[in-house]
Amino acid sequence: MRKIELAPIGYVHNSSGPDTPNDVLQGQTSEIVLDEKYRDGLMDLDKNDLITVIFYFHEAEGYRLRLHPRGDASRPITGVFNTRSQFRPNHIGVTVARLKSVEGNRLVVEGLDALDGTPVLDIKPHILTFDQGTKTDDPWKDRTYKTP
Amino acid sequence: MRKIELAPIGYVHNSSGPDTPNDVLQGQTSEIVLDEKYRDGLMDLDKNDLITVIFYFHEAEGYRLRLHPRGDASRPITGVFNTRSQFRPNHIGVTVARLKSVEGNRLVVEGLDALDGTPVLDIKPHILTFDQGTKTDDPWKDRTYKTP
Repeated sequence: MRKIELAPIGYVHNSSGPDTPNDVLQGQTSEIVLDEKYRDGLMDLDKNDLITVIFYFHEAEGYRLRLHPRGDASRPITGVFNTRSQFRPNHIGVTVARLKSVEGNRLVVEGLDALDGTPVLDIKPHILTFDQGTKTDDPWKDRTYKTP
Repeated sequence: MRKIELAPIGYVHNSSGPDTPNDVLQGQTSEIVLDEKYRDGLMDLDKNDLITVIFYFHEAEGYRLRLHPRGDASRPITGVFNTRSQFRPNHIGVTVARLKSVEGNRLVVEGLDALDGTPVLDIKPHILTFDQGTKTDDPWKDRTYKTP
């Protein structure tokens, strides 16, 4: 398998720009608008408190195998796979965000460190077995459900 | 942006097959062999106890917007984005695995629920800010480092 072709399922909308500092990005509220054709796939997602958002660093060009984290020369050089930098061989970002609401094909999330216009590749429920290295067989202990 | 083209950075090797049950997959030990050209990007990764592995469900064909989780008819139909099913629009899997060792371009991991031969798209350190919805500014509290 030489090449893998994907297509965005939707896009991120927020008020960030290329110069928005990281801590502001991480605290921001965003809307994710999915393509209408995927709307049915969102059934029950609103029960989750946390979701895992997989997105594409569309502004990143190329990659560096070793770098200063966040381009900060005061932080020692390390391997790109030991960082969350966007300058990686495949420009994929993964962030767990807090799901505030789902209406139709629109999700409101907090804590998604993605720029305005970012293509979204996938959305998953946050499940401890997969996202935290904590295996459990009890599906009720495996997620963070919203408290009614 | 209509299409996004990615290429595997390496492959998963283990003793699983298409009929291996999920709980066995989740408990297995795997080797991830990266392409030699990405070896330098692994610098310092061995300090992490947990890593996030992004991979491609190469055996999955097509997608279903609503499905019984794990194909189990006793579990109610739900939206694909509310599951970790492989039958999703973009066949991307994300699993946090325990890193046992790194030697050259080879990683040994536990708890990666990927089939033998799975293409790997990315490897990231598990960081609470990104992977658990828990924001912290203290980089020493943000990871699970191996105890020396």
